[in-house]
Amino acid sequence: MKFKGLESVKSLAIVGATGLVGEEFLTILGEHKIAIAEVKLLASEKSAGQQIEFGSRSYSVETLTESSFDKVDAAFFSVPAETTRKFVPAALKAGAIVVDDSSVYRMDPNIPLIIPEINGSILRDYAGGLVSTPNCTTTPMVLALNPLRDFGISRVVVSTYQSVSGAGRKAFEELSTQTVALLNGQAVEAEVFPHRIAFNCLPQVGAVAESGNSVEEEKMINETRKILSLPELRMAASAVRVPTFCAHGLTVNVEFQNELPAMEVIRELLDSAEGVQVLDRADSHIYPTNVEAIGSDDVFIGRLRRDRSVKNGISFWAVCDNLRKGAALNALQIIDALFTYRRMA
Amino acid sequence: MKFKGLESVKSLAIVGATGLVGEEFLTILGEHKIAIAEVKLLASEKSAGQQIEFGSRSYSVETLTESSFDKVDAAFFSVPAETTRKFVPAALKAGAIVVDDSSVYRMDPNIPLIIPEINGSILRDYAGGLVSTPNCTTTPMVLALNPLRDFGISRVVVSTYQSVSGAGRKAFEELSTQTVALLNGQAVEAEVFPHRIAFNCLPQVGAVAESGNSVEEEKMINETRKILSLPELRMAASAVRVPTFCAHGLTVNVEFQNELPAMEVIRELLDSAEGVQVLDRADSHIYPTNVEAIGSDDVFIGRLRRDRSVKNGISFWAVCDNLRKGAALNALQIIDALFTYRRMA
Repeated sequence: MKFKGLESVKSLAIVGATGLVGEEFLTILGEHKIAIAEVKLLASEKSAGQQIEFGSRSYSVETLTESSFDKVDAAFFSVPAETTRKFVPAALKAGAIVVDDSSVYRMDPNIPLIIPEINGSILRDYAGGLVSTPNCTTTPMVLALNPLRDFGISRVVVSTYQSVSGAGRKAFEELSTQTVALLNGQAVEAEVFPHRIAFNCLPQVGAVAESGNSVEEEKMINETRKILSLPELRMAASAVRVPTFCAHGLTVNVEFQNELPAMEVIRELLDSAEGVQVLDRADSHIYPTNVEAIGSDDVFIGRLRRDRSVKNGISFWAVCDNLRKGAALNALQIIDALFTYRRMA
Repeated sequence: MKFKGLESVKSLAIVGATGLVGEEFLTILGEHKIAIAEVKLLASEKSAGQQIEFGSRSYSVETLTESSFDKVDAAFFSVPAETTRKFVPAALKAGAIVVDDSSVYRMDPNIPLIIPEINGSILRDYAGGLVSTPNCTTTPMVLALNPLRDFGISRVVVSTYQSVSGAGRKAFEELSTQTVALLNGQAVEAEVFPHRIAFNCLPQVGAVAESGNSVEEEKMINETRKILSLPELRMAASAVRVPTFCAHGLTVNVEFQNELPAMEVIRELLDSAEGVQVLDRADSHIYPTNVEAIGSDDVFIGRLRRDRSVKNGISFWAVCDNLRKGAALNALQIIDALFTYRRMA
């Protein structure tokens, strides 16, 4: 991963800097030694004053207000919907380029929803200030589907194995606290999740929409259609929370319109796609798990096989760091692309 | 659950008595206060001599040998394939009725593969001595599909969320040991599973067959076809191990040939089926999890919804105690049915 446009960013704001995604965003900036003259770490009042180390400096977290964006070139938002709705307009008004990780603007037909490897070229002619980054389960699935789109994706059935970090820092702590309590034979309390998550699977992520799908399942379906420009794509999703800390897994079953080549060709198509790595020697138990995905930029694919229950079908497993490519990294790539294009213009 | 035939069993052998399924088998017998004059607890030599409390007595585990089945009326086998192949013929030769929990005989066209609520009537005219009980992921799925079979099941796409207890006592201990180690910041070793299972998902259960499916996935497909007498049923399965101790979850997507009634009717059909309970008020986060399933005789179903990506489709979540209805309870019901029919004959 190389960043070319980010050096034009003189002042960068991270809204939700104390959250897991904000933290990952800073980690990636640090790993790439990206020097930005001014970094503003913004969060709610109760986190204000917290010290965060970044580069060779210590930054003090500031309270997010409508005047936080003065002279800010780019702002990354990773905060709840309500806060997003309240402060994104202020950032845009102040002239900042905003990349938002919430679902608030994702389905707005005027706002691009971007995975740079797939539809990043949309940003070339985009004059607006706001871009959305997709849901953390959508991104890995779409990255895995896109290299195969020429075969005519006809229907997708996906099930998720989502880690608790997708629900934020408190959810992360809840898994840890409940696990320790159970191993000590103590009672557990559920606060973040509606039920116990330790050693348990919760088959509903978020509220339920009128369709009967959960909001998470609706996001996967709608966002996939938008990113792939396949508004009629037939898709069924089941989103399940599992007791892992980080990385989201997916079982994906895909039906195609066209005849498929040998599995070796499909494997090669996927492995050569940017942002995708195939790790698949099932005969030796070589396949990706959360462990391989955590801290990596890529989506890992394994267990690739033909599905003989339809004419042209495959099944596979995908796993991706939900905080990284599922959120912070993808947002950072979007900011980078926007500034690359604007510098070129 | 009522057992009527078991009182005719004077001598019962449990082969694999020290395993998790053997233990559950004894637990169920105890819960129902089923008095059996002679209970033989058999296991490998290294478990011999171990004392197991059952009823008001303490039993000494005996080494399994070919002469273990003298005067035994019924034997339940829950041991590895190799041991099954070696000792089931001895038990049959001694005149015992055998119910086997391994996959060795399941697909043998001469051996019934039984879920009593579904195809138990096969046993009425069965003169043989050996019956197989299905794989612990197959049973809950088939119990959930069967009440809807009149709509013409056209295709099933299933993904599993399987607990470690399905892999035996050592796997159970491995999840516990690894979890404690990780929470203490220590390195973990994988012995039972090929990779770390604590806070991790393993997208392959068992070895991989020529089809590219894992053996577990092949079992689900083949056994479902046999039990439902739908040899051509189109089905895709993805079996994934998750870090839970007990109960197996499933996301199930089903396509039907015929038009479906309102979801309320489907809900009612499922809830009124024997061995099935619907727990589904998604708007209040009421759905079944491992916690509800553990220790229960039933398969729990939740998150029932239409799948609009096909003409007649539904999606749902199912969860079931894999040691109980997934193994020991179903086997006990089979023994009970066999002795009920034979007493009637």
